[in-house]
Amino acid sequence: MNGMTESREPTARAAEGGRRVLIVSAHPDPRSLTASLTGFAADELRAAGHEVEISDLYAMKWRAVTDADDYPEHPAGARLDVGAASQHAYENGSLTADVRAEQERLLRADAVILQFPLWWFSVPAILKGWLDRVFSGGFAYGKDVPQYRNGSLSGRRVLLSVTYGATESALSERGIHGPLADALFPLQHGVFFFTGMSVLEPFTIASAVNLDEAGYRAATAAYRERLAGLFTEEPLPYRRLSDEDYTRTMELRPGRERPGTTGFALHLA
Amino acid sequence: MNGMTESREPTARAAEGGRRVLIVSAHPDPRSLTASLTGFAADELRAAGHEVEISDLYAMKWRAVTDADDYPEHPAGARLDVGAASQHAYENGSLTADVRAEQERLLRADAVILQFPLWWFSVPAILKGWLDRVFSGGFAYGKDVPQYRNGSLSGRRVLLSVTYGATESALSERGIHGPLADALFPLQHGVFFFTGMSVLEPFTIASAVNLDEAGYRAATAAYRERLAGLFTEEPLPYRRLSDEDYTRTMELRPGRERPGTTGFALHLA
Repeated sequence: MNGMTESREPTARAAEGGRRVLIVSAHPDPRSLTASLTGFAADELRAAGHEVEISDLYAMKWRAVTDADDYPEHPAGARLDVGAASQHAYENGSLTADVRAEQERLLRADAVILQFPLWWFSVPAILKGWLDRVFSGGFAYGKDVPQYRNGSLSGRRVLLSVTYGATESALSERGIHGPLADALFPLQHGVFFFTGMSVLEPFTIASAVNLDEAGYRAATAAYRERLAGLFTEEPLPYRRLSDEDYTRTMELRPGRERPGTTGFALHLA
Repeated sequence: MNGMTESREPTARAAEGGRRVLIVSAHPDPRSLTASLTGFAADELRAAGHEVEISDLYAMKWRAVTDADDYPEHPAGARLDVGAASQHAYENGSLTADVRAEQERLLRADAVILQFPLWWFSVPAILKGWLDRVFSGGFAYGKDVPQYRNGSLSGRRVLLSVTYGATESALSERGIHGPLADALFPLQHGVFFFTGMSVLEPFTIASAVNLDEAGYRAATAAYRERLAGLFTEEPLPYRRLSDEDYTRTMELRPGRERPGTTGFALHLA
């Protein structure tokens, strides 16, 4: 560790090549595997000269639920369309302070890591609520925001770091739960690539319930490798939205896919 | 409408063939399309002689976030494993009253409808929090709970009723967001079929932002048909977990799939 502290203000890069990383962490217990991995990643990245901010959603008592309280300027008599109301609030600078702070953290970051346990094959509700509220209209999507190319978060990398209780085989290509990559596609592609980010292969720890000492050592050794490659690894080759590849109805043009692929895999170039 | 009111107590069936339906609804505004469709479905089902309960998550101020407060008997000094803690609380009858009430509603229901807007290709955080908390260890999953066969909610049907702002083509087989059925698979199969439910094709309304009068009429006419078939429609043919189909590592045995299928589709018989 290099003694740097978290800061919410933009500051000079920590060192030649030092970058800023935001870790979003989602577990209620500071003694959990999730919390340990968040601490491990922060230590590793700081030791490598990067600046790290941590959004520890439970510690922050992050409000998961979006409602009219998020849009104080929304007329009380009018029907609430969350997309339109959040876009209006974003454009008028009237989003709530907690949401604005997270948007600023995202904009400051060169890379974002999401550290979470897989609950029902998706993110815990508190993390879904971070996505629902922080990735607001006007900021992350909307009429004037490019999708799947040059979006608001272009130039930033994202790494999902996921722990789960099931065995690796049960979430493999022929596993009964379906492939983990497909369960994560709506996040990886539909949220992060949508906003222009460069999306890395997820880092995953299977059979994560009651991981023993040796298991934890092996897992952090593997995580160390991935963290070392955070800014150099080749991102997933998702296709950018272009007229060359997609029709006006946003469907992949015939014959552009890798032979034999269907569904989500069509969108890998 | 037949004048029946919601009841949390088990009562005699409303009429010969009348069943119980639970509608879980997730939108902050009672004037929203989601709320209108929930009201429409409740009216239709009651007119057909069914009993309807509604879990209107925003109106109930449903707590989305799971933490140690959910498990008052969990020792303060011990690391919180949500699966183990919720299973222990379930078995000891010490889950919180809100969670127990929803579990009882599920057990009373012959069919469950989830009415929600698609936010970032998934359920709103409040509905994810309903799943995270209500589908607890011991009740919905855990060492002694069968998976993908004869689970705790066997014999019940589930219909996802989903509205989304994107066009239908953008969520079609070749659409850039990926097929909607695949985005919903972790819910349809990973949550509901996992617990033994019979899962119907979702009912969907595309381009749902600012739906006009004619659009709403067409949508509710189509919804009426689906509601009429709620107890007769053929469910999706997901494979039950059996030694015949799956290995001990929970992978589909070679050659059992429909020719040419991969990923999620392997699990359709």
